[in-house]
Amino acid sequence: MATLSISRRIRKTPFTSRVEALGVKAYTVYNNMLLATEFRSFEADYWHLCQHVQVWDVSVERQVQIKGPDAFRLVQLMTPRNLSKAQDDQCFYLPLCDENGLMINDPIAIHIEQDAWWLSIADSDVQLWAKGLAVGMGLDVDVSEPDIWPIAIQGPKADELMRRVFGDIVDDIRFFRYKRLDYHGRKFVVSRSGWSKQGGFEVYVDDPVLGCQLWDELFEKGADLNVGPGCPNLIERIESGLLSFGNDMDFHHSPLQCGLRKYCHLDQDIESLSLDALRRQDRQGVPSRLMGLMAVGQNETPEDKTVYLENNKIGEVFSDCLSPRYGAYLAIAMLDSQAIEKVMMNQGQGLSINMGSQALAVKCMEIPFEFE
Amino acid sequence: MATLSISRRIRKTPFTSRVEALGVKAYTVYNNMLLATEFRSFEADYWHLCQHVQVWDVSVERQVQIKGPDAFRLVQLMTPRNLSKAQDDQCFYLPLCDENGLMINDPIAIHIEQDAWWLSIADSDVQLWAKGLAVGMGLDVDVSEPDIWPIAIQGPKADELMRRVFGDIVDDIRFFRYKRLDYHGRKFVVSRSGWSKQGGFEVYVDDPVLGCQLWDELFEKGADLNVGPGCPNLIERIESGLLSFGNDMDFHHSPLQCGLRKYCHLDQDIESLSLDALRRQDRQGVPSRLMGLMAVGQNETPEDKTVYLENNKIGEVFSDCLSPRYGAYLAIAMLDSQAIEKVMMNQGQGLSINMGSQALAVKCMEIPFEFE
Repeated sequence: MATLSISRRIRKTPFTSRVEALGVKAYTVYNNMLLATEFRSFEADYWHLCQHVQVWDVSVERQVQIKGPDAFRLVQLMTPRNLSKAQDDQCFYLPLCDENGLMINDPIAIHIEQDAWWLSIADSDVQLWAKGLAVGMGLDVDVSEPDIWPIAIQGPKADELMRRVFGDIVDDIRFFRYKRLDYHGRKFVVSRSGWSKQGGFEVYVDDPVLGCQLWDELFEKGADLNVGPGCPNLIERIESGLLSFGNDMDFHHSPLQCGLRKYCHLDQDIESLSLDALRRQDRQGVPSRLMGLMAVGQNETPEDKTVYLENNKIGEVFSDCLSPRYGAYLAIAMLDSQAIEKVMMNQGQGLSINMGSQALAVKCMEIPFEFE
Repeated sequence: MATLSISRRIRKTPFTSRVEALGVKAYTVYNNMLLATEFRSFEADYWHLCQHVQVWDVSVERQVQIKGPDAFRLVQLMTPRNLSKAQDDQCFYLPLCDENGLMINDPIAIHIEQDAWWLSIADSDVQLWAKGLAVGMGLDVDVSEPDIWPIAIQGPKADELMRRVFGDIVDDIRFFRYKRLDYHGRKFVVSRSGWSKQGGFEVYVDDPVLGCQLWDELFEKGADLNVGPGCPNLIERIESGLLSFGNDMDFHHSPLQCGLRKYCHLDQDIESLSLDALRRQDRQGVPSRLMGLMAVGQNETPEDKTVYLENNKIGEVFSDCLSPRYGAYLAIAMLDSQAIEKVMMNQGQGLSINMGSQALAVKCMEIPFEFE
């Protein structure tokens, strides 16, 4: 594994010293900020997440704040999802697309107050895109990136731990909804969300001192719940079919290629930059799209990520892992649409991923994976 | 030092396998791509760079291409520097600023062809900013990020090495100018530039296979010149006063705060987004600006980067290093303007950087540093 040089350009978070003290083994860089990737091992982190409760420093989920009379209009311009359907307390998953229908990012939007939205972003400078549009169109909005450092509390015991800290009110927060909960006199946005399928919450910390107090309290009150440090887990997120912007899709892909059709309201009358391009692609069909690949019994990750069908290259693996639960190699791959059709007529069999000299037979399926 | 997890989101370059084989010790992540930071040690890399010739993989200098009838207009909108003064073969350093006069990036622009510019960018998604403006204003341009992976050849023997590969024609390339030179039938843009003050060139490789051939040829033909791998060197760039976007300045600073006044043509009649804001700041004065700090004889880098004057906090160190050549601690710091005035009246003496319990006396001076 490579060593990472840290400089001011790669920002620490209010929790970095705690993450270090808790034995972080590796980082990635995300929105110019440190994000832990491993504490014990990918596999041990995975089992702990699925059985107990973890506290994650996800400060890298920067909030792009869009505020002003034209805020709604600007956010709607950026996404093909009908924003008028967002409830006031909803965490609203938004593919952001450019005028060609290509992805810019896939944040969670929340309508934080009258004429103000937060976009909790994946890894790209959404602020620059939003501001460019606003300045170019002369919109009456202010685009900024306030200092907010989310903490995620994830795992089957997250409810119990959060109840101990915030009270029973957390039971009233429905999935992908949020409430403002008091924490020592400050109101934190607390949502039932997070980048795992193990259940849990995210707390949008906007005060580093209180945030660290909260972090410590979560560890104190969760000791008997086997609380531990954690981070988005490669195995869990692939098993759960959670896509990663920058890995599974990037500026070159449309949401229609990534299984995000349901977030594109192509038949509705909304003012969105990407609508024409996406409608066109929807009619013509996508050239390639994301699929799941599985090889049960495989216990090594292939070095070469090229995917072949009958010796023809039909795509590439974008993310992969070994699933300890299913004893299988799992991959998320961008594959040629015609090849997918051919393979799916054959129940997903007959694909091989090149492993150097050794070919690996995989089964092809829609994401999320269905395990037998 | 921390370990870096590498995924598809953090792109490798065509040269990564070579960089690995040559013993890279650490990376940073820059424009979602790997950039080596160290091969031998910062200090050994420094001496080698100052004495011999190094080949750098600077693929992270992504090219944002702006092409079309409105290309000139869009680039001019983004910078306060008068673009009409750019010669056709010139490498043109451009502070990019938003409508508030705050920095977006500081690329080198080249006028690559009629109605087409390349911005060789520092670390931020300039593509999104440029595209947002273009879409918002309805400009007739195409904004893209073509696959170009620059190689830098830096050091006092760079001329000799480049002559051996490209011929004597490299002597005709003046400082911050470029020519298109033939390499096995392909024309590469070759400029006399690079992020060191040791002299050298950058080759804008747009073919990975030929690029690797070039890389290998540079090492073969440079064996007797003691050619070696290298990368932007922290010590050399600070000694030379080369600023790093993201470290020494970011979205919160104007070029007037960063010693870039001469690139801001505030008295000229150009169509630039930032002009009004910068004129205003120029009249009112900047709240803080970058200064150099030096402590001769200091052989340890302070942990705490806060800068004090008479026990008042007046700023923060953004980048620092130990200079083996001058036996000094060198820092680039953003300091309060009034405090700078006070200190400079006293010949730059009297500042102290906090080192935990130990205060470190430093001399304050303009950048680039002047060594006695």
